[in-house]
Amino acid sequence: MRIAVLGTGMVGRAIAARAAELGHDVVVGTRDVATTRGGEWGEWAAAHPGVTLTGYADVATGADLVVNATSGDGSLPALDAAGADNLAGKVLLDIANPLDFGKGFPPTLSVLNDDSLGERIQRAFPRTRVVKALNTLTADLMTHPGQLAGGDHSVFVSGDDADAKKVVTELLTSFGHTDVIDLGDITTARGTEMLLPIWLRLYGRLGTPMFNVKVVR
Amino acid sequence: MRIAVLGTGMVGRAIAARAAELGHDVVVGTRDVATTRGGEWGEWAAAHPGVTLTGYADVATGADLVVNATSGDGSLPALDAAGADNLAGKVLLDIANPLDFGKGFPPTLSVLNDDSLGERIQRAFPRTRVVKALNTLTADLMTHPGQLAGGDHSVFVSGDDADAKKVVTELLTSFGHTDVIDLGDITTARGTEMLLPIWLRLYGRLGTPMFNVKVVR
Repeated sequence: MRIAVLGTGMVGRAIAARAAELGHDVVVGTRDVATTRGGEWGEWAAAHPGVTLTGYADVATGADLVVNATSGDGSLPALDAAGADNLAGKVLLDIANPLDFGKGFPPTLSVLNDDSLGERIQRAFPRTRVVKALNTLTADLMTHPGQLAGGDHSVFVSGDDADAKKVVTELLTSFGHTDVIDLGDITTARGTEMLLPIWLRLYGRLGTPMFNVKVVR
Repeated sequence: MRIAVLGTGMVGRAIAARAAELGHDVVVGTRDVATTRGGEWGEWAAAHPGVTLTGYADVATGADLVVNATSGDGSLPALDAAGADNLAGKVLLDIANPLDFGKGFPPTLSVLNDDSLGERIQRAFPRTRVVKALNTLTADLMTHPGQLAGGDHSVFVSGDDADAKKVVTELLTSFGHTDVIDLGDITTARGTEMLLPIWLRLYGRLGTPMFNVKVVR
């Protein structure tokens, strides 16, 4: 399928590379194409010639699946730039976390408890089918989960649209995920976004981001 | 050792029973002894004759370890009633979660993000050595983790005092826990308390509280 990825950071590049490797038609969107080309994207793009770079305004056109891999505070502006009409009816895999680094490390959350970034995006784009997923593990494990314990660990999907969750679950399974847990509607994104505080502490304690939780049951 | 448990609910009874089973001298504290005896405690106590019931004011006297198994909003009042002098120098295993049921189910958290109930208790009782632990799983699995996957899942300790964490870790190990992760100082309790939102959703989704997370690394 045609996959549009918003964001050119570690997460965006990891998803784009993996999706291209699996044979999808991948386009990555950025705020300013010239600035992105002049940065670390240039080197990465040379090794990934199948991935196209474009501005946010065009990225979602013709996409079957849109991936939000921007930072938490950059998500709504990026999606606004992509255009509500372009996003209408589409499945949006939202990977962003609303991290606030204003008080240093570890960051706090800027949205939580009785709301989530996933819900904010769903409210702002009611015609788009938002699925929160993959925001609970490091980019390398999002895309190549088999590197850790042969993939024997868990990821989650949250969203209001069952068909959209099916599309995302199939993509995750194609990445190698073996335990995709459907938590329920988009309000369950509160739970996965609020996993970040313990994730950040475990990262500090274990000295590596190559870990994940498994829901043992 | 002598273990004082504050709280006569499911968690308090589970901890008291398990500690007594392991040969500890166990006393349970409650706000009003007569009222507690008249409730479901009576039947439970008949099956656990080795466990003594007393008021909060006396429960911590002579204890080696104090366990806070009260509700989140009942924790500071119960500890106040137990007395700062009686708690001074002691290890306090804090299992409570600051759940707010004011908006129905699932509850939100009343303390979070840049604070936690564990930290509030540590600030209120600076002479007590607070260790947050066991607040991330159901009572049955706190005390008998081997029931699930032979105990192959994780629990966490957070606290400022290394010796106190060692005492709690040894207790948890004696219960059957095989993976006790020391997250760091008491501020890391934010992470484990903020696990509750996903725990509650998983409970709803799986239809049983007999699950836990394993940190795969």
